[in-house]
Amino acid sequence: MTDSRPSGRQADQLREVRIERAFTRHAEGSVLVSFGETRVLCTASVENRVPGFLRGKGEGWVTAEYGMLPRSTHTRNDREAARGKQGGRTLEIQRLIGRTLRACIDRGALGERTITLDCDVLQADGGTRTAAITGAYVALVDAVNFLIKRGDIKRNPIFGAVAAVSVGVYRGTPVLDLDYAEDSDCDTDMNVVMNDGGGFIELQGTAEGHAFRRDELDALLVLAEKGIKDLFAAQQAALAKA
Amino acid sequence: MTDSRPSGRQADQLREVRIERAFTRHAEGSVLVSFGETRVLCTASVENRVPGFLRGKGEGWVTAEYGMLPRSTHTRNDREAARGKQGGRTLEIQRLIGRTLRACIDRGALGERTITLDCDVLQADGGTRTAAITGAYVALVDAVNFLIKRGDIKRNPIFGAVAAVSVGVYRGTPVLDLDYAEDSDCDTDMNVVMNDGGGFIELQGTAEGHAFRRDELDALLVLAEKGIKDLFAAQQAALAKA
Amino acid sequence: MTDSRPSGRQADQLREVRIERAFTRHAEGSVLVSFGETRVLCTASVENRVPGFLRGKGEGWVTAEYGMLPRSTHTRNDREAARGKQGGRTLEIQRLIGRTLRACIDRGALGERTITLDCDVLQADGGTRTAAITGAYVALVDAVNFLIKRGDIKRNPIFGAVAAVSVGVYRGTPVLDLDYAEDSDCDTDMNVVMNDGGGFIELQGTAEGHAFRRDELDALLVLAEKGIKDLFAAQQAALAKA
Amino acid sequence: MTDSRPSGRQADQLREVRIERAFTRHAEGSVLVSFGETRVLCTASVENRVPGFLRGKGEGWVTAEYGMLPRSTHTRNDREAARGKQGGRTLEIQRLIGRTLRACIDRGALGERTITLDCDVLQADGGTRTAAITGAYVALVDAVNFLIKRGDIKRNPIFGAVAAVSVGVYRGTPVLDLDYAEDSDCDTDMNVVMNDGGGFIELQGTAEGHAFRRDELDALLVLAEKGIKDLFAAQQAALAKA
Amino acid sequence: MTDSRPSGRQADQLREVRIERAFTRHAEGSVLVSFGETRVLCTASVENRVPGFLRGKGEGWVTAEYGMLPRSTHTRNDREAARGKQGGRTLEIQRLIGRTLRACIDRGALGERTITLDCDVLQADGGTRTAAITGAYVALVDAVNFLIKRGDIKRNPIFGAVAAVSVGVYRGTPVLDLDYAEDSDCDTDMNVVMNDGGGFIELQGTAEGHAFRRDELDALLVLAEKGIKDLFAAQQAALAKA
Amino acid sequence: MTDSRPSGRQADQLREVRIERAFTRHAEGSVLVSFGETRVLCTASVENRVPGFLRGKGEGWVTAEYGMLPRSTHTRNDREAARGKQGGRTLEIQRLIGRTLRACIDRGALGERTITLDCDVLQADGGTRTAAITGAYVALVDAVNFLIKRGDIKRNPIFGAVAAVSVGVYRGTPVLDLDYAEDSDCDTDMNVVMNDGGGFIELQGTAEGHAFRRDELDALLVLAEKGIKDLFAAQQAALAKA
Repeated sequence: MTDSRPSGRQADQLREVRIERAFTRHAEGSVLVSFGETRVLCTASVENRVPGFLRGKGEGWVTAEYGMLPRSTHTRNDREAARGKQGGRTLEIQRLIGRTLRACIDRGALGERTITLDCDVLQADGGTRTAAITGAYVALVDAVNFLIKRGDIKRNPIFGAVAAVSVGVYRGTPVLDLDYAEDSDCDTDMNVVMNDGGGFIELQGTAEGHAFRRDELDALLVLAEKGIKDLFAAQQAALAKA
Repeated sequence: MTDSRPSGRQADQLREVRIERAFTRHAEGSVLVSFGETRVLCTASVENRVPGFLRGKGEGWVTAEYGMLPRSTHTRNDREAARGKQGGRTLEIQRLIGRTLRACIDRGALGERTITLDCDVLQADGGTRTAAITGAYVALVDAVNFLIKRGDIKRNPIFGAVAAVSVGVYRGTPVLDLDYAEDSDCDTDMNVVMNDGGGFIELQGTAEGHAFRRDELDALLVLAEKGIKDLFAAQQAALAKA
Repeated sequence: MTDSRPSGRQADQLREVRIERAFTRHAEGSVLVSFGETRVLCTASVENRVPGFLRGKGEGWVTAEYGMLPRSTHTRNDREAARGKQGGRTLEIQRLIGRTLRACIDRGALGERTITLDCDVLQADGGTRTAAITGAYVALVDAVNFLIKRGDIKRNPIFGAVAAVSVGVYRGTPVLDLDYAEDSDCDTDMNVVMNDGGGFIELQGTAEGHAFRRDELDALLVLAEKGIKDLFAAQQAALAKA
Repeated sequence: MTDSRPSGRQADQLREVRIERAFTRHAEGSVLVSFGETRVLCTASVENRVPGFLRGKGEGWVTAEYGMLPRSTHTRNDREAARGKQGGRTLEIQRLIGRTLRACIDRGALGERTITLDCDVLQADGGTRTAAITGAYVALVDAVNFLIKRGDIKRNPIFGAVAAVSVGVYRGTPVLDLDYAEDSDCDTDMNVVMNDGGGFIELQGTAEGHAFRRDELDALLVLAEKGIKDLFAAQQAALAKA
Repeated sequence: MTDSRPSGRQADQLREVRIERAFTRHAEGSVLVSFGETRVLCTASVENRVPGFLRGKGEGWVTAEYGMLPRSTHTRNDREAARGKQGGRTLEIQRLIGRTLRACIDRGALGERTITLDCDVLQADGGTRTAAITGAYVALVDAVNFLIKRGDIKRNPIFGAVAAVSVGVYRGTPVLDLDYAEDSDCDTDMNVVMNDGGGFIELQGTAEGHAFRRDELDALLVLAEKGIKDLFAAQQAALAKA
Repeated sequence: MTDSRPSGRQADQLREVRIERAFTRHAEGSVLVSFGETRVLCTASVENRVPGFLRGKGEGWVTAEYGMLPRSTHTRNDREAARGKQGGRTLEIQRLIGRTLRACIDRGALGERTITLDCDVLQADGGTRTAAITGAYVALVDAVNFLIKRGDIKRNPIFGAVAAVSVGVYRGTPVLDLDYAEDSDCDTDMNVVMNDGGGFIELQGTAEGHAFRRDELDALLVLAEKGIKDLFAAQQAALAKA
């Protein structure tokens, strides 16, 4: 019964997705992405240097950092800068974002420069990491286009598109794009990152309550493929604007 | 010659000030304040506990934390959470915000609860700390009204209003509300925090180039008083909306 | 062609698995687990206290910490204690170990005590996290049996078994239980954690080179199910000894 | 009524000021400055290198660090080295000291070297930062004279003198050079840093209790100018000794 | 040939020892101890609480912290508070000071309070740790007498005296109380802590160049005993003053 | 009465000493050393770089790091990597290990490379630092032989052997090689490091209960010399194996 979703959405229905480019003005790419009430500011910053392990190799690097504003959440969380370190969840998410977006970059074509994707959650309502990946891709494209326009790089280093969505088993039903109400009360939670060739880039499924069966996994993957297709359309629509 | 300002503003002219309440939904008060291109998200979070030194005294606390998103600035700055500590400038600013907003709070009337003002700079163009104080005041009022409405506190603990503005001597001329272009090229920079009774709460003036004379100081204070009066009007207008 | 594996193993063949109990004498459970040349010391330590968020709820907690000795690897890695923080990979792995082993524990039956699973890699040759989960399960059982024997808990809080294995696409062929030579040169790497009821507890797949297709995923899951069945047998054989 | 000061001083009277040069022997400049019972050891250390942002520019740098010995205060404070970080107050003060003393240095004439001013409070009784600035100036002069004498620099990079004093409204009366008894019980507290040309280098006024009015500010500035004149005399007297 | 000592001292001659009590005014004990040009400020601070492991046991605690002012040394050392941690040498020395002074305290007689001995080196010329122990003992006595005088404790918890000196083999000759010139160029360096009953509390000998023989060790111990006897006399003389 | 030792050992009897070489496979030297139930894994890692202060001087470096696995001890200790810093005891021990093993190395003959000795305690039962030194020596020899065999160095940089043992006064009797039961209940505890020429490299004696007399010290040194002679034999026997 899909009408049991707290939001009234269909089981295979995304929340309203909004992708606003040029949300701030200094970054080479700046995107405010919204998956319903989840809002993440994704900026792409270009710097003409690479990490030590790449120096002199003629290759570029794409990396990501993630943070939540202290009151992006229902109750206030400590500011990581004040606590003096990033938590395990933060590190895990920013490693995921960086890794999955490097999957669509030809680092040789990028040349010896680094693009840093800062994904800062202004408001959280579930799915911040999937929104971040989906939005950061658009910011990355904008930053690369900036470099191409300025003549810094010749060949577009981006191949294909990358987007991500969560799926889960909520009260027995596989559903797409969990919001906070669902996420905090579901049995299985899976984040799926795909490219627009239909390939999987990353798959992370966790049984929160009971272990999930193979048939549940299959159903979740079908939902994810459907949702990500919609996200690719939203990315392209956003990028089509001037 | 005031037409020498990079923005074309008059010497005693603020940038366009915008105060959007309820910018995010979880915080008891949430304000996006803009001083021109400087945009700071100020949230006020209520928690039913106080720091150790106040426990059991029947008094509340107001404190602030400040941060800049890594790419709120012209070039990317390291994320303080990743560096593992807040810098001296950050600590200085958040101490200033907390101290000046405590100046309009009757902590006994607030009761044993803490209101934390998180001021996060989404986009920086000079004057982030003065925008933060001005916006955080509005977020604080909203949080207090939330508590009053819910019946948690009887008597309004806020007395008067607090706002802040920068003034400086730019190429020989005292001007109001420095933007980044002016701030990075001025001789004297002063941040002024006042209450709506015309009293000074904080005054911080720094000679960047040459030391400033008493008559320059006097001229700057006149500008600041004028500008802050306009800011009080902007705060009241914002608070007058439903 | 499975004979293309550097080790000469069949595609669906685990490395030699050894599980030595009581490897050290102070811990309530102490297991040296070997997946071929990968050797991880897993200790289970019982303490009569729980983290703050569980205090007074009558429930217990199972958590894990992970570390690599500096020269467990081909070249020496910095000691995390000397660097002053645990890296993102470490935090990610220890969160995974704790989360997946909590999936076989009835925390009410455990009572207000914490079992900490320390997984320290003495020698690394790929698959340290899956070896750690598989070995830590045995250490956990030993620690729980210690508590039962001493009369501290009445009802066995462990239900079912948990084990983990990696699978991946190495030079085009899906293979089971990657060693370092394969891991550092494979296209897709997936860690699978299951219980002995055939359910998935965690699934983490990453495309290292090209994105993986749905049929590759299916083949990998079949291999993983086969391998984990063998690991359950190895766990039971080890636990059957006096 | 000036006789209401706890110390019995006149409203415009400094505490006894003592400036002992060569207090320790290794530093190029070493001054023990006393403002009454406040005693700060200020050393100036010369090093032949500059921070990264100045490398190769032919300019020098002056910076400061500040610390309080744990039992310089009425009750013991944690040692910052043991706590693992410098607090916000410490960072604020050392930034102030460095900034204000750079205001009397021609960094080109100093050449590519750094002078670090370490200001360590041996005993605190209010006004440690103003004593530190006043004493550090003398240590800086000694260090520069050392460089000139040794032939390392040709042209004296110091222009003018810098000194600092606090002023405040204590029980309704503007007074000069607050001691601890006054500082912990005053309405307004202002630190003023000036040069010997009568210009202001820094002005930091804080309303502790009620906001201060413009006429109070004016009275405080008059007191400060008077006190700083006396401090310049004390600095010159100290420097006149062999 | 003892006249080969850089200072011209006899082989068994201490540097001039000075012990000034009440050097600062807030601490319950405050001693500036000088071993020649080595000057260490030792304060003893009383607090009415004990570390967690002693709570409720009716026993007190004596602990120590050690630090060097950045320019107490020939060339400037980084400030440990700024570096964000205490170095290994610092921790080693402060552990030594605390451990050896606990050797003369009856912790039951002290009652549930902590005395913290802060030993801060104002000027270093070798032997800072032995000077610190010797001076801290006097500060400890003063703090205990303060408690007795105030009626807080009945029975004197201090039994005997504790002092320390360094000895070493300098250019083939065993010598007493190494200064920096000797310390940085000696073959063997030994710190000896004794009580006034002639017992050893701590012995730390290190071969810097070649290993030392048993007869050298014996000669060093004779020197140390002699020197420490002189230090006990200096402590008593200082304590005999009003 | 030596039969009073908890283990039943004679006063001058070592625990069973075992030295297993090639315990792990990646390190150039890898030794599991056991002093009875104390087991320490000592690896020697060669790197072709030296610390900054030695760069370009043609000399090598030997350094050590020490750690205890969290449950190597009777009750679990916090993981230092998780706590974010190494404790004072750890730093003290690893400084000792590095310092004493540098005493048998000709750093010029080693050339510009660093050998890091990682000593990780798998199981603790007293004497971990002396076991670590004794085992690390063997790992160091293996690493140096590896370099010689590979032709990287011509002349053997190791001269002599280094070993260490603890001695102490247990219930009035001087005994050799304290185990945990003795260590936690003894009056005096001394760690002695010697070379095979009969010279002392390091001597660290601490009075835990009452101060120790000169005759006790003499008795302890005799025991230590005897025990270390046995340890040299064990080292040589281990190194004699293929």
